[in-house]
Amino acid sequence: MAKSVIILNGPNLNMLGTREPGMYGAATLADIETMCVDEGKKHGITVDFRQSNSEGELVTWIQEARDKFDAIVINPAAYSHTSVAIHDALRAAALPVVEVHLSNIHQREQFRHHSYVSSVATGVILGLGPTGYKLALIALSEQL
Amino acid sequence: MAKSVIILNGPNLNMLGTREPGMYGAATLADIETMCVDEGKKHGITVDFRQSNSEGELVTWIQEARDKFDAIVINPAAYSHTSVAIHDALRAAALPVVEVHLSNIHQREQFRHHSYVSSVATGVILGLGPTGYKLALIALSEQL
Amino acid sequence: MAKSVIILNGPNLNMLGTREPGMYGAATLADIETMCVDEGKKHGITVDFRQSNSEGELVTWIQEARDKFDAIVINPAAYSHTSVAIHDALRAAALPVVEVHLSNIHQREQFRHHSYVSSVATGVILGLGPTGYKLALIALSEQL
Amino acid sequence: MAKSVIILNGPNLNMLGTREPGMYGAATLADIETMCVDEGKKHGITVDFRQSNSEGELVTWIQEARDKFDAIVINPAAYSHTSVAIHDALRAAALPVVEVHLSNIHQREQFRHHSYVSSVATGVILGLGPTGYKLALIALSEQL
Amino acid sequence: MAKSVIILNGPNLNMLGTREPGMYGAATLADIETMCVDEGKKHGITVDFRQSNSEGELVTWIQEARDKFDAIVINPAAYSHTSVAIHDALRAAALPVVEVHLSNIHQREQFRHHSYVSSVATGVILGLGPTGYKLALIALSEQL
Amino acid sequence: MAKSVIILNGPNLNMLGTREPGMYGAATLADIETMCVDEGKKHGITVDFRQSNSEGELVTWIQEARDKFDAIVINPAAYSHTSVAIHDALRAAALPVVEVHLSNIHQREQFRHHSYVSSVATGVILGLGPTGYKLALIALSEQL
Amino acid sequence: MAKSVIILNGPNLNMLGTREPGMYGAATLADIETMCVDEGKKHGITVDFRQSNSEGELVTWIQEARDKFDAIVINPAAYSHTSVAIHDALRAAALPVVEVHLSNIHQREQFRHHSYVSSVATGVILGLGPTGYKLALIALSEQL
Amino acid sequence: MAKSVIILNGPNLNMLGTREPGMYGAATLADIETMCVDEGKKHGITVDFRQSNSEGELVTWIQEARDKFDAIVINPAAYSHTSVAIHDALRAAALPVVEVHLSNIHQREQFRHHSYVSSVATGVILGLGPTGYKLALIALSEQL
Amino acid sequence: MAKSVIILNGPNLNMLGTREPGMYGAATLADIETMCVDEGKKHGITVDFRQSNSEGELVTWIQEARDKFDAIVINPAAYSHTSVAIHDALRAAALPVVEVHLSNIHQREQFRHHSYVSSVATGVILGLGPTGYKLALIALSEQL
Amino acid sequence: MAKSVIILNGPNLNMLGTREPGMYGAATLADIETMCVDEGKKHGITVDFRQSNSEGELVTWIQEARDKFDAIVINPAAYSHTSVAIHDALRAAALPVVEVHLSNIHQREQFRHHSYVSSVATGVILGLGPTGYKLALIALSEQL
Amino acid sequence: MAKSVIILNGPNLNMLGTREPGMYGAATLADIETMCVDEGKKHGITVDFRQSNSEGELVTWIQEARDKFDAIVINPAAYSHTSVAIHDALRAAALPVVEVHLSNIHQREQFRHHSYVSSVATGVILGLGPTGYKLALIALSEQL
Amino acid sequence: MAKSVIILNGPNLNMLGTREPGMYGAATLADIETMCVDEGKKHGITVDFRQSNSEGELVTWIQEARDKFDAIVINPAAYSHTSVAIHDALRAAALPVVEVHLSNIHQREQFRHHSYVSSVATGVILGLGPTGYKLALIALSEQL
Repeated sequence: MAKSVIILNGPNLNMLGTREPGMYGAATLADIETMCVDEGKKHGITVDFRQSNSEGELVTWIQEARDKFDAIVINPAAYSHTSVAIHDALRAAALPVVEVHLSNIHQREQFRHHSYVSSVATGVILGLGPTGYKLALIALSEQL
Repeated sequence: MAKSVIILNGPNLNMLGTREPGMYGAATLADIETMCVDEGKKHGITVDFRQSNSEGELVTWIQEARDKFDAIVINPAAYSHTSVAIHDALRAAALPVVEVHLSNIHQREQFRHHSYVSSVATGVILGLGPTGYKLALIALSEQL
Repeated sequence: MAKSVIILNGPNLNMLGTREPGMYGAATLADIETMCVDEGKKHGITVDFRQSNSEGELVTWIQEARDKFDAIVINPAAYSHTSVAIHDALRAAALPVVEVHLSNIHQREQFRHHSYVSSVATGVILGLGPTGYKLALIALSEQL
Repeated sequence: MAKSVIILNGPNLNMLGTREPGMYGAATLADIETMCVDEGKKHGITVDFRQSNSEGELVTWIQEARDKFDAIVINPAAYSHTSVAIHDALRAAALPVVEVHLSNIHQREQFRHHSYVSSVATGVILGLGPTGYKLALIALSEQL
Repeated sequence: MAKSVIILNGPNLNMLGTREPGMYGAATLADIETMCVDEGKKHGITVDFRQSNSEGELVTWIQEARDKFDAIVINPAAYSHTSVAIHDALRAAALPVVEVHLSNIHQREQFRHHSYVSSVATGVILGLGPTGYKLALIALSEQL
Repeated sequence: MAKSVIILNGPNLNMLGTREPGMYGAATLADIETMCVDEGKKHGITVDFRQSNSEGELVTWIQEARDKFDAIVINPAAYSHTSVAIHDALRAAALPVVEVHLSNIHQREQFRHHSYVSSVATGVILGLGPTGYKLALIALSEQL
Repeated sequence: MAKSVIILNGPNLNMLGTREPGMYGAATLADIETMCVDEGKKHGITVDFRQSNSEGELVTWIQEARDKFDAIVINPAAYSHTSVAIHDALRAAALPVVEVHLSNIHQREQFRHHSYVSSVATGVILGLGPTGYKLALIALSEQL
Repeated sequence: MAKSVIILNGPNLNMLGTREPGMYGAATLADIETMCVDEGKKHGITVDFRQSNSEGELVTWIQEARDKFDAIVINPAAYSHTSVAIHDALRAAALPVVEVHLSNIHQREQFRHHSYVSSVATGVILGLGPTGYKLALIALSEQL
Repeated sequence: MAKSVIILNGPNLNMLGTREPGMYGAATLADIETMCVDEGKKHGITVDFRQSNSEGELVTWIQEARDKFDAIVINPAAYSHTSVAIHDALRAAALPVVEVHLSNIHQREQFRHHSYVSSVATGVILGLGPTGYKLALIALSEQL
Repeated sequence: MAKSVIILNGPNLNMLGTREPGMYGAATLADIETMCVDEGKKHGITVDFRQSNSEGELVTWIQEARDKFDAIVINPAAYSHTSVAIHDALRAAALPVVEVHLSNIHQREQFRHHSYVSSVATGVILGLGPTGYKLALIALSEQL
Repeated sequence: MAKSVIILNGPNLNMLGTREPGMYGAATLADIETMCVDEGKKHGITVDFRQSNSEGELVTWIQEARDKFDAIVINPAAYSHTSVAIHDALRAAALPVVEVHLSNIHQREQFRHHSYVSSVATGVILGLGPTGYKLALIALSEQL
Repeated sequence: MAKSVIILNGPNLNMLGTREPGMYGAATLADIETMCVDEGKKHGITVDFRQSNSEGELVTWIQEARDKFDAIVINPAAYSHTSVAIHDALRAAALPVVEVHLSNIHQREQFRHHSYVSSVATGVILGLGPTGYKLALIALSEQL
């Protein structure tokens, strides 16, 4: 039976490809969306792919996911390190959650080493670039 | 003379009743609003009851309260622990403020033990569930 | 059916009205006792109101409460910040507990921001002056 | 050749003149805008002056600045102390940035002593009131 | 030659058997006293067994022990974590001291991990329930 | 005009002369009392000299001092480091306070380096043995 | 062209399937080895799968990997949190490294939140059970 | 029915009797083994007594204990303070564990005050010299 | 009316132009002095420009400034981070103070992030190179 | 036999009487010198009274004291909190040392709560104004 | 009379010359051994030079050194920062110990700044490359 | 070709031989100078040997070294732990630097464990007494 996954992207990820390519690579967010939709198809998963710079909007999307999706993939970007609101929303959603970061946050500044999302995520994938999203879908395809 | 109180609710409180009822109880936010309006009537207080997932919107509502309301009751939820902006807005509002939390934040994770709101609140009420809102209105009815 | 509540007051609260009225107000502890007895009557609650400067005596009163009272209201004053013994006694008492502080401890010295009592209290009420005791009784009247 | 600078103002700065004038002075944000536009003219700089209470909106404006402006002046107010998202946006913008605070944050609460913006700013100007904005424009006029 | 040991019990230990039996077991303090007196007899040790909720009374008993007993067994309970006065009294007593805790304090809250008594005790026995008292007497019987 | 000073001594000071004479010297507390009474006479000060192992009793004596004495000399001993209750009592007493320690607490364990009493004392005298009490009386004789 | 990957497993992973299955699942390490060999075949990768309880042996295997393998997958288990030696060996190996943990270490004790391996790993995969190993091989198959 | 206990000794304990006798006493490890075997006989317990300087070997022995012994006594020596691997092995063994230290680690350097073993031990015995092993066996004889 | 400003430079600033030009630029301290004198003239301010490697000499100059100058500009260099004596001297001087740093200290080592001078400065200007001195004079010209 | 005491005063104490009289009183340093010389005469002590803003000069004076004086009284002012060099010089001097502070440093900023001098002083006198110097001489007159 | 020194090398030092030559230089461990043997001959010292990746093996070698060698030179590499077992073994060995590090650990990551070995070493030599070993032998030749 | 090295000694080192000989040995600074001059001659190095109690003078000497010497040996004594100014001067000097301490600072008080000089030194030699200076010259003779 078909499953659906919402993939949420936090602040500044809309700048991918132009923002610090040495750190984040040349792929744009649209490239990653295409890759995710394609990967989803292989596993019978429909993908809804979104980005927001607003913490509140991300919270609202997570709340809506509860009834409309089977799982959440989230790259919370900067909000990983500062948002208890997203942590709370994910906990209330009561869905499988995979947290993805393009870069390996443990090789960066100290303030990026802690993520409020990790403690409410099923799994965490770091440092593997856009491939990380693909791996998240594969992992969810096994769980769902 | 009639008084008015704005009651502000932070992120995820719109999910009350469905979100972790073991932690937050079965009452919905609408139930609490009804209870507050009723309690306000007993004390000659009109109540404006709002909720937002957006930190910026909460800041704006607090700014507006300055000229339109006599006091603020606020359950800042997750933003208690992370928002200096709400702290600053409340300080600038220069109104009586009662901070309410449904759960006792000192029995939860370490990161919930500190609230940026408490240091600018007149009073704080924790862990008494929806009754906390009612108590806040009673306290304000004595002060106003 | 009639309920009974013991209200315990910690060190220096016997000095209320004379001790730093700018911080604690002009009401004496006897005034608060009268207010509590009156408030209790409205809710069918008999009130036993005590004060001690001795940590050990407060521990003993809490132990005795277990079999004689239906709930505890406690303003532990200075012992909030230093007494694991009171924490343990309250936990063992296994009764509803409301912690009350006249002042808002989060607006004072750093060493007053942590209370060993909060983690074993059902609810906490801060900064609302003598009204805090009254609110505690109202909250308990709903729970009992 | 004419240059352009975007001047961004964070939460509660729209309340300037009314909010704690003892701390922030009597000038309104409109007064500061006028001063900045005038100062810009002296140096052949056009000024785009904005304010928002929303972290996400500030992030978006910084992203847009990348292609439309030659430099950024930012008074991030409360978000200085809590926003990794603004830090990331400024880093990605790859423009000269001058951080301005009206008050001297090192004379205030401990939580205001650290700014996530300072580590991605070219320069920082604190405690000089509205004059700080003017100095920022002078500094940029030398750099651009 | 007959030896004598004073066994001191701190706050709330008079509630043993009723207080959180899942944590502390079903034995009462009287049961432990009987066990200690019996065990003492096997080793020619007379046992004086006391309990107090008062830090000051425990200090006084330790002071008296200096001239009247050959060793001290102490379960300081909550005062382990907060009492420098008991630490000082034990140091001044200049007798062998065995500290006993019924539960393993390292498996409980962070604030129970440090004991002011341990640094002035000859030995420490944790987590072995009432047997811990017995072991303390055996250890002292070898030393005395 | 004659003045009166209460001199309060905390836990274990009744053991002076026998307790660790290498640390505290050979003088007994009675010797110090005699020295203080004599010194007081030189300055027209009557001295009331007391000792208690009980935190609560010390609090009560400080409360009583408010109306009966012109100043307080206190060697809080171990309670220096742990008693917020004594801190509060001294603050409420609103009298000149000189804190005395026989030993220099900054040459001892880390936990003795902080005294809750120092922040409410007029002056502090450390490490000068029984002479410290005498100096405290001289200092008060100049102030009163 | 065929590639080879060494998969290293740290202490206690030989107990998988019997050790706390609620935490680590029912699969044995042999099951995971089979899964990895199979997954490797799909990508033209030969897999050498090993386990050791010895920090020194793991260091030696990593040293040997430098000339014999194209990449390393490592589940360092307990040594993640304590071994600078493994950190140094991985850094010297100068190969792509994917760190895998079966459980989500950020949902466990504080001392498991930091891994010395993460700062020298290309990528990190947490909390996805045995699937994590498979994802590591897929990620490496894209990189090699 | 006969029971068996494995007694494990960590690094440098093979040097007992020669290593710092002022700290650890004159008894050799062989003396302690003899004492333990004899004490075991009194309680119908066979004792297997081992020592290793290798963290990995200790982990392996603990793993083997699971099926071959009824309980573990462990003096982890230096590894107490640094080994998460031994902590994990003991947790997986799911047997009663008594941790023994010859010296009182709370009277020594700060880095010896924390033991990773204590949080997975049933009981802990410190500072009582070789007698500590004997007490551990007595305690286990009551439990088994 | 003419005003005068003393500009003080701390240790190693005499090496400007030769010392790490990548960090501090190619301008020498003499170049900056010339720039300051010129800038001062524009605003009717006479400038006294000094440098010392000695903390004590800087303290003495600040003390002398009290009666001879209208304001102080200070680049305390390394002493920013370590000198309470300069902090105290500036506080006692009771003049407007602008602290200037050539580099942005928040982009450097952790130990440079705190300045004892900032808490007694009117304003702070960081990271704008020699222009910072000029801006300080402009700011003072508006205040004086 | 006549004794001699050197009294050393640290940075900014030459400003006494003018510097923050609310904090430090109206007496000048010359007033205190006169008082000390007079007090010394009463006890047969000659007094050498000096002040320096230079840490190095204070170190040198302390070194010279070793052979020329019988004791040291030192008010290290700001250097209390930052100077290991003065600590070392005092330790090497091997003379009785009394540390004096005019104000009670425990009622001021956190960074003034620690003094490197206290751990090498015989005694410490805080918060008693110029009288503190006099008390130091009395204390030394008893010791010498 | 001939003396003998054991030179111990910790984990990953067998990779010298290939491992990060920018950090550790091009010399291999065999080159250093040759240099040490030659240097030893100049001073009448025989040298036994070893390397191990195993903490336990290093502990055992140190234990053996007690009776067979006159001094120890040790480059503990990664175990410097994590091994209490090596600390204990060196303390028990009761021989002169010189700790050598090729690189200057204070210029590297924070976790390399502390060495458990330094507090039990006679001397420490950092950052001087292979020459450090030679200096250690010269220092020991003067002491032995 | 002849090389020259400046050897700088910090505060209190002029007291060597008399100051705490148990800690620092019986050699005077003149003895060490003689030893250094002699050792320098063996390696064709002329030595300029100085001592100062003044941080500022040490900074100035380091600045002068840049053009006049080939390397610096520095025993910064107490200033190691407190002087950012010396750190900055050494960094600007851009010469080889060897830091020497007579005692092993890691066996002393916690505040001596960190040296601001180490992070700008090529090498560090601790705890080897006057020999440390000699070793520093040998090391430099190999580098120059």
